[in-house]
Amino acid sequence: MGRIPIMDVSPVVDGGRFPARATVGESVPVRVNAFREGHDAMGVQAVLLDPSGAEHARVTLASTNPGLDLWEGTLRPDAEGSWSFRVEAYSDPYATWVHDASIKVAAGVDVDLMLREGELVLARVLDEAAAGDRPAADAEAARAAIDALGDASLDPAQRLAPAVGGDLAAALHARPLRDGLTLSGPHALRVQRSRALFGAWYEFFPRSEGARFDPAAGGWISGSLRTAADALPRIAEMGFDVAYMTPIHPIGTQFRKGRNNTLEVHPGDPGSPYAIGAAEGGHDAIHPDLGTIEDFDAFVARAKELDLEVALDIALQCSPDHPWVTEHPEWFTVRADGSIAYAENPPKKYQDIYPLSFDTDYDGLYAAIRDVLEFWVEHGVTAFRVDNPHTKPVRFWEQLLAEFDEKHPEVIFLAEAFTRPTMMHTLGKVGFHQSYTYYTWRHTPEELQEYLEELVESAPYMRPSFWPTTHDILTPFMSSGGRRAFALRAILAATLVPTWGIYSGYELVEDVPRPGAEEQIDNEKYEFKPRDYGRALEAGYSLEPLLGRLNAIRRAHPALQQLTDIAFHESDDDQVLVFSKHLDADATGTGRPDTILVASVTAHDRGAWTTLHLDLDALGVEDSFEVEDLLTGEHYTWGEHPYVELDPEHRPAHVLRIIHPEETTHA
Amino acid sequence: MGRIPIMDVSPVVDGGRFPARATVGESVPVRVNAFREGHDAMGVQAVLLDPSGAEHARVTLASTNPGLDLWEGTLRPDAEGSWSFRVEAYSDPYATWVHDASIKVAAGVDVDLMLREGELVLARVLDEAAAGDRPAADAEAARAAIDALGDASLDPAQRLAPAVGGDLAAALHARPLRDGLTLSGPHALRVQRSRALFGAWYEFFPRSEGARFDPAAGGWISGSLRTAADALPRIAEMGFDVAYMTPIHPIGTQFRKGRNNTLEVHPGDPGSPYAIGAAEGGHDAIHPDLGTIEDFDAFVARAKELDLEVALDIALQCSPDHPWVTEHPEWFTVRADGSIAYAENPPKKYQDIYPLSFDTDYDGLYAAIRDVLEFWVEHGVTAFRVDNPHTKPVRFWEQLLAEFDEKHPEVIFLAEAFTRPTMMHTLGKVGFHQSYTYYTWRHTPEELQEYLEELVESAPYMRPSFWPTTHDILTPFMSSGGRRAFALRAILAATLVPTWGIYSGYELVEDVPRPGAEEQIDNEKYEFKPRDYGRALEAGYSLEPLLGRLNAIRRAHPALQQLTDIAFHESDDDQVLVFSKHLDADATGTGRPDTILVASVTAHDRGAWTTLHLDLDALGVEDSFEVEDLLTGEHYTWGEHPYVELDPEHRPAHVLRIIHPEETTHA
Repeated sequence: MGRIPIMDVSPVVDGGRFPARATVGESVPVRVNAFREGHDAMGVQAVLLDPSGAEHARVTLASTNPGLDLWEGTLRPDAEGSWSFRVEAYSDPYATWVHDASIKVAAGVDVDLMLREGELVLARVLDEAAAGDRPAADAEAARAAIDALGDASLDPAQRLAPAVGGDLAAALHARPLRDGLTLSGPHALRVQRSRALFGAWYEFFPRSEGARFDPAAGGWISGSLRTAADALPRIAEMGFDVAYMTPIHPIGTQFRKGRNNTLEVHPGDPGSPYAIGAAEGGHDAIHPDLGTIEDFDAFVARAKELDLEVALDIALQCSPDHPWVTEHPEWFTVRADGSIAYAENPPKKYQDIYPLSFDTDYDGLYAAIRDVLEFWVEHGVTAFRVDNPHTKPVRFWEQLLAEFDEKHPEVIFLAEAFTRPTMMHTLGKVGFHQSYTYYTWRHTPEELQEYLEELVESAPYMRPSFWPTTHDILTPFMSSGGRRAFALRAILAATLVPTWGIYSGYELVEDVPRPGAEEQIDNEKYEFKPRDYGRALEAGYSLEPLLGRLNAIRRAHPALQQLTDIAFHESDDDQVLVFSKHLDADATGTGRPDTILVASVTAHDRGAWTTLHLDLDALGVEDSFEVEDLLTGEHYTWGEHPYVELDPEHRPAHVLRIIHPEETTHA
Repeated sequence: MGRIPIMDVSPVVDGGRFPARATVGESVPVRVNAFREGHDAMGVQAVLLDPSGAEHARVTLASTNPGLDLWEGTLRPDAEGSWSFRVEAYSDPYATWVHDASIKVAAGVDVDLMLREGELVLARVLDEAAAGDRPAADAEAARAAIDALGDASLDPAQRLAPAVGGDLAAALHARPLRDGLTLSGPHALRVQRSRALFGAWYEFFPRSEGARFDPAAGGWISGSLRTAADALPRIAEMGFDVAYMTPIHPIGTQFRKGRNNTLEVHPGDPGSPYAIGAAEGGHDAIHPDLGTIEDFDAFVARAKELDLEVALDIALQCSPDHPWVTEHPEWFTVRADGSIAYAENPPKKYQDIYPLSFDTDYDGLYAAIRDVLEFWVEHGVTAFRVDNPHTKPVRFWEQLLAEFDEKHPEVIFLAEAFTRPTMMHTLGKVGFHQSYTYYTWRHTPEELQEYLEELVESAPYMRPSFWPTTHDILTPFMSSGGRRAFALRAILAATLVPTWGIYSGYELVEDVPRPGAEEQIDNEKYEFKPRDYGRALEAGYSLEPLLGRLNAIRRAHPALQQLTDIAFHESDDDQVLVFSKHLDADATGTGRPDTILVASVTAHDRGAWTTLHLDLDALGVEDSFEVEDLLTGEHYTWGEHPYVELDPEHRPAHVLRIIHPEETTHA
């Protein structure tokens, strides 16, 4: 237990069963529950250890809730690797003496005794300095304080003053005298590149980019990786960081699905790219219509020129035509009649998909999948969006992600596990860098605040990605709210969390669902869907400018690039969401704090004229302060209770930069 | 990670840093978070291991919240010692097949295939039986089912029926086929005697029992252990289990406190028994006025005859006259001027008390205290009420409690740590058997429900003791509410948790506070306080009958002897608290379930005519049921929404026994 109990340390995941995770430069909140008996003063420090185990930084934690014995501070690892941190708790004899002596000397109680005890405490500073454990300046300050304590020519308050304040107090706050030192840790902190936390993803079907209907040729001409590469500049210009392609592999023909997920397939129907595998190859092959591996390399190269990363969609399932079906029937479930089991939810059958089975030849299947992923990494893929990871064994992901973390730590895995929270959390714990979330189904301020608080809680192991829609999901909110809903949900996704994503066509407000389903009609999974973004832009209804603006704001504001420092504020209108994100001056890289305040409607069918009630402490401002609306460029002077007029059509939200006084001064 | 992830197991304290605790015969709730990928069926079992490590019981957990992947069950250790438990999660291929086959055969899909796969699954039952891993009866049932599955003369539903129901289904529920077996644990479970969880304590100052003012002798004649022994039959008759005495040691004279905690002491003032130590001895001595060690032994013997345990108050502090002060100055804080530090809260001084210091000669002081406690244990003390444990280092308690747990596991330590929650919880984690609680300051139904839910949460490491008052605490609620408040708070304390306690004089409604303080006027700490219980009883205002009735109800109803199975119900009146406590038939020792339902006012100055809204599931009853009021003997027939008339004077609460239908049947 040690002399000073340390009971709860965060970030520690499941008692240390999994490492906590952070990204380079991230401000990692450290929270510790530590206490001692009685009334003596104590302190807590967190020591950040770099991958070599050397002390990188030492932070004295603040007592943020004495009633709960909570101590908090921030650690900031500055490189990738297996970092760790240690917590040190100790009695602080100097602070104890300062407390008692200040009261007693002022009250004329035990004056000589308290002054004498001060000399004894400060003698320890001299000893530590003599031993080389403390700067000489500390010893000088202590020597002067000791002299004053012993100077009977002064009155008691004067004798005391140098010992309880000034340089000495500052020095002993920074480097306290410590008794009963008690340690906790080291606790693992896996530090990954910043894209694991912060980024904007753009999803598209490469075959749609440049696809065209050619009556002369008798039907559709597929887009290719070459034509898809032409789409990249527009994506980059909108400020996206990751270009994510749905699967690019050959598509099976047996039981191929027709348009709108029907069993009726017509000649020329391209099939779902998630029905992977055909005579031309499986997960390591490219659909012939899309091109060759050289085309793929060219696509990646073009993306790199544009500062875009390429993410591939990994769907670990096979069409009946996948080469593995014949080469490795042991990687599938073989039924009593010798046939291979297709996917089903009895009595429904999904005969176009053969799920993989990990229970027969686990090692062989593991190696094959690992090799597929390494193949794509060798061709420049730096991120994988993993389709339905929750339908594969968690221990498979644990092993795979550990191996990639070792060999290719730069590669980011995004889990598309729209499932129960325990599975989502566990996938994060075993190494997924990011996870899709329930954002898509959280709409009211209450729902969003509660969900964000959950996400902050799970930040050490699950990094959220917010998507207003995907190619599989078009909620009633989106299909009923038109352009207003699309704008609103983009603003919230882009500002609430550091990673968000958009499925192509969002710019065009593609909001028509297939009747009876919560997904797009004429779903792109089953057909070509070329889009005329230019015409929409000219016509003024495209959301492209808004998306670009949001990404630009995100890039300019480090407060939006982090997850955990978020505060919620009140509004008289319970459908208005008000939140702020903040980074301290020492964490922004600019020497200035960064604070973004967002006030947004959450319903698409009703505006709000309302008064906000701001937590000024959370904003780092005092009664009156300047803000700049980053969506409109307008400036306002706001106070604790600003009045706002929001409306879903013309001003769904204020996205405000707080202009901190020091900026005004320095400007 | 294993094939089937097991993520959160309860009871496990701080990831296994401390053992979870239980008592003999206690129903220990086990909660596990376990899941698998995909849709296959799975199961979870908890295996209770006795102190030798042998399997004592195996419980198949129920899936209580599939959305959260929660599995729950109950373990019941039946002896003291270092038990443990293990969790086993597995895929259940039989249940998976039953699910799929039932649907598909009914739908006419893959009928032959499903029947054939059933034969393959059930062949495993035959194999296990042949290997001796399963009863022969299972094999017989499986053989019959296999025969039916293969009997083409039957229609498919008939072929399927024996395989998916009847004996075979029951056998395979009790002893499932298991794939991908994954283990968690063993997790420690320290099992202690039942008094650690359940008991009624009665506190008194032995010197007051039999004390008398004798003008002839010039003042007070102290009560003694001999006269105090005469008080024991009354305590036993009221149904208390533990007779707890405030300190019995010699009391210092230097800076002795006078009546009402004044610095002005008069001849004959006995001083506070918490100012321990005088020329006659210290913590292992008996105050001369109280008698000799032989008197103490006689007192303990008398208590044992009455089935009462004796608890001593351990206050680890010394008066300036304590022998340790001269013999072991190293066990105190020596100040710069060579004097020994008294207690203070600057600038306030408490010169009658010298706190012990554990930082100079820890080992010496530890041994001395350990020896003191062992001395009293050798003289028959089986419980210690520890005064202010939060002013001593936690690691001291950790060591002391571990040593007693090893050498004297029967001895119960009750922590009087009225302090911050982290310290209270940690004292429980390091081994205190029981803790005083915030009950004294929780009054409304909302406060009480929230607090009970916290206590259920912390049950694996902190067992609560509810005291309406103590010799140090008389809240405004008690001092303003008179007899009604005393009755009400006793009923709630006695029924909400399994351990409660009463400070003598409670029977007499001693409710007058010292002005400006929340404690008794003329506090017994500083003077003799003999009481005439007989007269109060005759006059009909004594609470003795109520206390006796409550203790009798508690002894008769195992549901009140446990902490965790408590449910809260609604009332239209927000000042009425409605809760129930329940034990299943297999845990009561009677073969019948035991359910107590309490509906009580919580304010002493207002009655309630209101309708309750009961959770019938939690009560284990259906729409209409019989109850007996254990306070009045009245019987009612109640439904889901009973109407009650409560009033603090005549009927502050219903304490009802649910008469379960099976009791009626068997009666």
